[in-house]
Amino acid sequence: MTELDTSRDTDVCGTGTHVFDDAVALVAADAHRYTGRTHPAYANMVGPFGGITAATLLRAVQQHPEVLGVPLSLTVNYCGPLADGEFEIVARPVRTNRSTQHWSIELSQDGAVTTTATAVFGTHRETWSSTEAVAPDAPPAQDVAQQSLPEFIAWSRNYEMRFVEGAVPGPETGENPDSTTTLWVRDTPPRPLDFAALTALADVFFPRVFLRRGQYMPAGTVSLTVYFHADEHALARQSDASVLATARSQHFGKGYFDQSGELWSSDGELLATTHQLVYFKG
Amino acid sequence: MTELDTSRDTDVCGTGTHVFDDAVALVAADAHRYTGRTHPAYANMVGPFGGITAATLLRAVQQHPEVLGVPLSLTVNYCGPLADGEFEIVARPVRTNRSTQHWSIELSQDGAVTTTATAVFGTHRETWSSTEAVAPDAPPAQDVAQQSLPEFIAWSRNYEMRFVEGAVPGPETGENPDSTTTLWVRDTPPRPLDFAALTALADVFFPRVFLRRGQYMPAGTVSLTVYFHADEHALARQSDASVLATARSQHFGKGYFDQSGELWSSDGELLATTHQLVYFKG
Repeated sequence: MTELDTSRDTDVCGTGTHVFDDAVALVAADAHRYTGRTHPAYANMVGPFGGITAATLLRAVQQHPEVLGVPLSLTVNYCGPLADGEFEIVARPVRTNRSTQHWSIELSQDGAVTTTATAVFGTHRETWSSTEAVAPDAPPAQDVAQQSLPEFIAWSRNYEMRFVEGAVPGPETGENPDSTTTLWVRDTPPRPLDFAALTALADVFFPRVFLRRGQYMPAGTVSLTVYFHADEHALARQSDASVLATARSQHFGKGYFDQSGELWSSDGELLATTHQLVYFKG
Repeated sequence: MTELDTSRDTDVCGTGTHVFDDAVALVAADAHRYTGRTHPAYANMVGPFGGITAATLLRAVQQHPEVLGVPLSLTVNYCGPLADGEFEIVARPVRTNRSTQHWSIELSQDGAVTTTATAVFGTHRETWSSTEAVAPDAPPAQDVAQQSLPEFIAWSRNYEMRFVEGAVPGPETGENPDSTTTLWVRDTPPRPLDFAALTALADVFFPRVFLRRGQYMPAGTVSLTVYFHADEHALARQSDASVLATARSQHFGKGYFDQSGELWSSDGELLATTHQLVYFKG
C-alpha cells in the first residue's frame, strides 16, 4: 500500500487528489463489479472507519453507468471485519422506476461478504417543504476549540472536530446521563462536501455508550441508515464549511444500542438524518 | 382469493388462525425460497399495507432453518407496487457470525423485484442497559376513544387505534404545525405481540404529510427501518395489550420526508425504534 500512503500528504490544492477521494476510489471491473482497496488513512481499531466503507458503497452506485438521480437513502450492514487490502463491490440496480431507482450492493473480500447495503436513488421534484427538526444551539464553528479523538484512531485525523457538547470522555470524565454529542466537523484538509463525504460524516460520532459510561469498550456499528435531504445545490452552498452534527441514543441494552443523528449545514439547513444500531460489550 | 376472504372472520379464539397469521403465511419452496400471497384484509390504496409486507419478509427469515437468534434490525425498501396475488421471497443468510447473522431478502412477483430488504438477527447478552428516550404522555389506553382510519383503508380495520395526539385529519382540520402522532394501537381481534406483529406496527402511522397539510395526497414509504429493542420476554410481558406508538418527521421537501417513531409497551418499555423515508406528491 506504499502508493496510497504517499497520498496522505496531498490535498485539494496540491497536485494529487484529496485523501478522501483516494480512499473511496474504485475501478470498474465489469458491468456491476468494482474493485477497491482499504486506505490506511481511514483505518479504525479493527478494519476501516465504517463511514468510509459506506461512502465507498455509495460511490459504486454513483459511478455505475445506469445510475438515476441522486442518493435518497442508504442502509449499510456491517457483517464482518474488512481486512487491509483489496475488496470487491457488486452494485446491482434491482429496479428502476420513473423517478426512483433501487440498488442492492455487496462488498466482499476473498469471496466472503463483509458488508451489504441497499440504496434508493432518485430525482427531486419541487414540493411543499418544511423542516420540523430544530438545529442544536451552537456558537459559530470558529468560536469552538478544535479537539481530536485519540491519536490511535487513524481515520479521525482526517476530520477537523470542534465539540460543542458531549466530547469524547477522558480518564476522569465519569458517567454522563445524556448520550448527546454535538460537534462542528469537516474534512481536513478542507474539501467541498458531496454525497459521499456526507455519508461518511453520518458515521463520525464515536459510540454513544462511551459517553454514557465515561469509558471506552468494544463497540461497532451493525447497521447504518442515511436519509439524504440535501440536493446538489445545498451541497454546493455548504462547500467546505463545517457541518453541525448531533447524535443521541434512545436505548441501550442486551448488547446493542441505537443512535439517531442530524447533519446540519453551517446555514442551518438539514442535510441528512441518520440512524444506526451498534453492538457493544460492557 | 375466496378462501382467504373467509379467514377475515376467524380469530384467535375460533377454529382458525388470526388473520395476521394468514396474511404473513409462507410456504417453503426450496432452501431459500418461499411463496406467499397478498391478503385482501391487509390491502392499502395501492397494493398491500407496507407493514404486512415487512412482517412477511421478517417471517421468511424466522422460518428459515438456518436462522440464528431474534431480529435486531430490519430495513425494507419498497421498490414497486405489489399486485394482488402470489409472490415469491428469497431469503439468503449472507453471513453468520458467533452472535449475529446478516440476511439479504428479495420479494418478487412474475420475475420483477418489488421489495428488497436486509435484516440482522442475533443473540442477546446481558449488559448495562438504559432507556434515554422518554415515552410520550398518554392516558391509559382504555381512557382514550377508539377512532378508525377511513373505511377504504382496508388494513387499518385490523388495528384498534386510540389517538392521543395527531389523529388523521378530517375535512375541516386544516394545517398542523407539528407532525407528531401518538396512539395506542393493537391488533384486532387482539393477538399476542410477536416480532412480526411489532414489525407491522412500525408502519402503522399514516403519512405525516397528511397531518401537516391537513389533507390526503399521494404518499408511500420508500424505505423502512426497524431496530428491535424488545426480546422475547418483553413481547410475552406485553402480550395483547395496546402499544403506545409515536412518530414525527424531521424534514419534508423535494418530494420526500422522513419519519422517526417509537413503539412502547403498555408498561413503558421501549420495544422498537423505527425510521422511514416517504415519497409524497403535493
